[in-house]
Amino acid sequence: MTGPADGPGTAPRSTLDLNADLGEGFGRWRLTDDDALLSVVTSANIACGFHAGDPSTMRRVCERAVELGVRIGAQVSYRDLAGFGRRAMDVPPDELADEITYQIGALRVFAQAAGSDVAYVKPHGALYNRTVADAAQAAAVVAGISGAGGPLPVLGLPGSRLHEAAERAGLPVVREAFADRAYTAAGTLVSRREPGSVIDDPDAVVTRSVRIARASAVLALTGEEVAVDARSLCLHGDTPGAALLARRVRDGLEAAGVRIEAFA
Amino acid sequence: MTGPADGPGTAPRSTLDLNADLGEGFGRWRLTDDDALLSVVTSANIACGFHAGDPSTMRRVCERAVELGVRIGAQVSYRDLAGFGRRAMDVPPDELADEITYQIGALRVFAQAAGSDVAYVKPHGALYNRTVADAAQAAAVVAGISGAGGPLPVLGLPGSRLHEAAERAGLPVVREAFADRAYTAAGTLVSRREPGSVIDDPDAVVTRSVRIARASAVLALTGEEVAVDARSLCLHGDTPGAALLARRVRDGLEAAGVRIEAFA
Amino acid sequence: MTGPADGPGTAPRSTLDLNADLGEGFGRWRLTDDDALLSVVTSANIACGFHAGDPSTMRRVCERAVELGVRIGAQVSYRDLAGFGRRAMDVPPDELADEITYQIGALRVFAQAAGSDVAYVKPHGALYNRTVADAAQAAAVVAGISGAGGPLPVLGLPGSRLHEAAERAGLPVVREAFADRAYTAAGTLVSRREPGSVIDDPDAVVTRSVRIARASAVLALTGEEVAVDARSLCLHGDTPGAALLARRVRDGLEAAGVRIEAFA
Amino acid sequence: MTGPADGPGTAPRSTLDLNADLGEGFGRWRLTDDDALLSVVTSANIACGFHAGDPSTMRRVCERAVELGVRIGAQVSYRDLAGFGRRAMDVPPDELADEITYQIGALRVFAQAAGSDVAYVKPHGALYNRTVADAAQAAAVVAGISGAGGPLPVLGLPGSRLHEAAERAGLPVVREAFADRAYTAAGTLVSRREPGSVIDDPDAVVTRSVRIARASAVLALTGEEVAVDARSLCLHGDTPGAALLARRVRDGLEAAGVRIEAFA
Repeated sequence: MTGPADGPGTAPRSTLDLNADLGEGFGRWRLTDDDALLSVVTSANIACGFHAGDPSTMRRVCERAVELGVRIGAQVSYRDLAGFGRRAMDVPPDELADEITYQIGALRVFAQAAGSDVAYVKPHGALYNRTVADAAQAAAVVAGISGAGGPLPVLGLPGSRLHEAAERAGLPVVREAFADRAYTAAGTLVSRREPGSVIDDPDAVVTRSVRIARASAVLALTGEEVAVDARSLCLHGDTPGAALLARRVRDGLEAAGVRIEAFA
Repeated sequence: MTGPADGPGTAPRSTLDLNADLGEGFGRWRLTDDDALLSVVTSANIACGFHAGDPSTMRRVCERAVELGVRIGAQVSYRDLAGFGRRAMDVPPDELADEITYQIGALRVFAQAAGSDVAYVKPHGALYNRTVADAAQAAAVVAGISGAGGPLPVLGLPGSRLHEAAERAGLPVVREAFADRAYTAAGTLVSRREPGSVIDDPDAVVTRSVRIARASAVLALTGEEVAVDARSLCLHGDTPGAALLARRVRDGLEAAGVRIEAFA
Repeated sequence: MTGPADGPGTAPRSTLDLNADLGEGFGRWRLTDDDALLSVVTSANIACGFHAGDPSTMRRVCERAVELGVRIGAQVSYRDLAGFGRRAMDVPPDELADEITYQIGALRVFAQAAGSDVAYVKPHGALYNRTVADAAQAAAVVAGISGAGGPLPVLGLPGSRLHEAAERAGLPVVREAFADRAYTAAGTLVSRREPGSVIDDPDAVVTRSVRIARASAVLALTGEEVAVDARSLCLHGDTPGAALLARRVRDGLEAAGVRIEAFA
Repeated sequence: MTGPADGPGTAPRSTLDLNADLGEGFGRWRLTDDDALLSVVTSANIACGFHAGDPSTMRRVCERAVELGVRIGAQVSYRDLAGFGRRAMDVPPDELADEITYQIGALRVFAQAAGSDVAYVKPHGALYNRTVADAAQAAAVVAGISGAGGPLPVLGLPGSRLHEAAERAGLPVVREAFADRAYTAAGTLVSRREPGSVIDDPDAVVTRSVRIARASAVLALTGEEVAVDARSLCLHGDTPGAALLARRVRDGLEAAGVRIEAFA
């Protein structure tokens, strides 16, 4: 199927999970085109009320996800509606763990009412970025996930402190990649503040998606081919045209023989 | 054991549940003396974050309740931290139901982590008062409870729209009485705005508690004896001296041969 | 110019103020097309943070309003981000007054920094509707406005308890009408729950706007001509196509010889 | 009056301002004994609603401060009710500046209604600590203060980035010291995480207060005498016995001939 010729990746894949952030409205406000994205992705990272996500939206997105066979994940965040969870916070580890547990519990009741369950956890925004390198907060997030019961898989960046802490705690980790973000030669993401950090060209995003799936590799911003070991691909849902781009990526992947399937 | 001589009540009891509102702090702020009250009550109405109750407090109170064998209930509320859930709100029924479900889910994860579960639901403050007479909101609260799965008992006022809606929906109802609140001759509570509506004298509160338990009756503000059918007695937790009074009530009840036990 | 032939209205006008709700985003979320609407209206009802309106949005909308010569008004609300201020709340009068004062103060600092000031107050959503008939809350809102200092005009519905309370307190009142809402034969608004309550046809809205301005009258849902005494016309800003419709209304009014000008 | 014999301080003082954090309740919750503290201090740092401080409390504390001739200051904070403003947040500078301006405006309307005005600004909690060393956030806070109009004095730690930014922007700075906190030999505060960082003995606090006032010096944790140049002394208000200790400090200072007076 795939082979050495495909590139430097360690684990060329013929199957890929697609995940996106969903349910990121709050009350009167809407952000993500939940129905359109649910028809594309296999895993839905659903906001739990701390950076976005009112209870009615959570219920609706859970119900629709179950109808479409999409897996439900808890998109946990700092408590920061005003900042949409994009402002890192020095939350004491104990408090942070309890805030994570609370969010998972709140989503779980809707997931179960819809006939499913919370199947994994993915931190949002500043908490995602912070727990790449901050071991204390990473451990707190993992403690909060463990506190919610059951070994819930943690979706995140390969090599992150979050994944290290999850593995130490016996939680499964699921590695994800980004087809619309530039990578450094070291395999990390180029900061959004750098020029060229976000790839806007839809064709390029599709091409990169296929390469990630088939060759476990991306072309770094500096031109080198870099190994990217990912079981899931993150599609952004909160930009204009997001749903359309997500559909193109999925179509492109399937045309290239990649099977789109939620992680086990 | 108890008989007609005990008074006009329909169901004289030798056992009684004691419930109180707990965990009503938020972050830096504390209100209820949770540890002291948990040593007295058999059912803990724990705030779920909408009028009070941060995640760490919820976890701690759940853990302590389980240690002491106290039953955990979800004290659900309007979303109103600034008003402590004491301001009635015209929340559309669908939204209200989902907000109730959310709160139960958030508490359940901590109750389960502590080795127990949410065993019942009791609305707080303005939502409690509103659903005595407002059938639409009562039905919404019941829908929210049903949405959380399982036939959770509903603790509330006998004859309330809330209890009617619960019974229609097949949820068990648990009737409660108040030993420190004045009753009308019709058996309803005297409004807090009326003089004499709250009984401050601890001895009177103890005496009334025993009479409720042994004779299913209270003396109305206007002097008549009124039947009060209650399986649980609500002790207030947010006033100075609340824990001490609660202890005296329990001691008085036990001295009068009343068995203090959570409802089935 | 205008005369008895124009209809039953008591005060045919050749000048009209146009007002709209602006700045109704919060953090990451946007709702109103503030720049487009600011190029049409003469009075901007700016959200103050209780139902919408983060500080940065408040500053930006104030600055832009001043650039365009648009008058700044405080769009005060119940404290209810989750419900967008659309859920009536039984807020005790003293608390409500203080919450109104707070919001005016918060907007004023941005209005003054932009070189202008808060020139009037208009309640939002459920508070607007509630104070049409609820004298206690109307008086509380007026007390809150008076508490902010200076006799700030109150924009509202003719005949409302709010306007009565404002007049008693010596605050100027400014009457407004709605060109896209159906009126009863008694001159009140048809409830949004009734069929036909909202007029969707842009041509009809323009025609009604001109009739309100030129003849101080609207055609009631039941066919009668009803007097409408309004110094200002409210344009809705939070619906798709709102800015475009607002522009058409203004153009239609100007083509009919109506001068668009902020109230004195 | 005071002279070289008094110690190493650069500016021995016979007058001192006393400041404390006040109004730090929220809705149903109370924390600070506002009335008792207002009878002791000359400057009241009043919470503005972001970490604590509901509008009614703000109004009441302003009114009482004016009655007692106490100066009103805006105690501005990160937006973090759940964390009481004690969790540092990576707020983008523009947002942070606007949030500061908003809070000052909200307090000013109550200060002016009470017949006074906001006379100075002091950051609270994590924002205070962060702006000691973080030049970007310090500049943002100063921009927010400038945005509120007028050259408002900034109360803070000598040598902080906040004071540097204030001076660059032409805002007066007022230096404060802490009699109940341990100092390093370098004249900075010992972190609260270190043993001995907080001085609990009331007599020691009084003695240190007098030494700060008379000799502009404190004894460091390591025994050295350190110069402390302070025009104001911060008294903590949110601990048990806070009001009593504050009274003892004031009495001790006055007995030592120190005049207690708000800064100019």
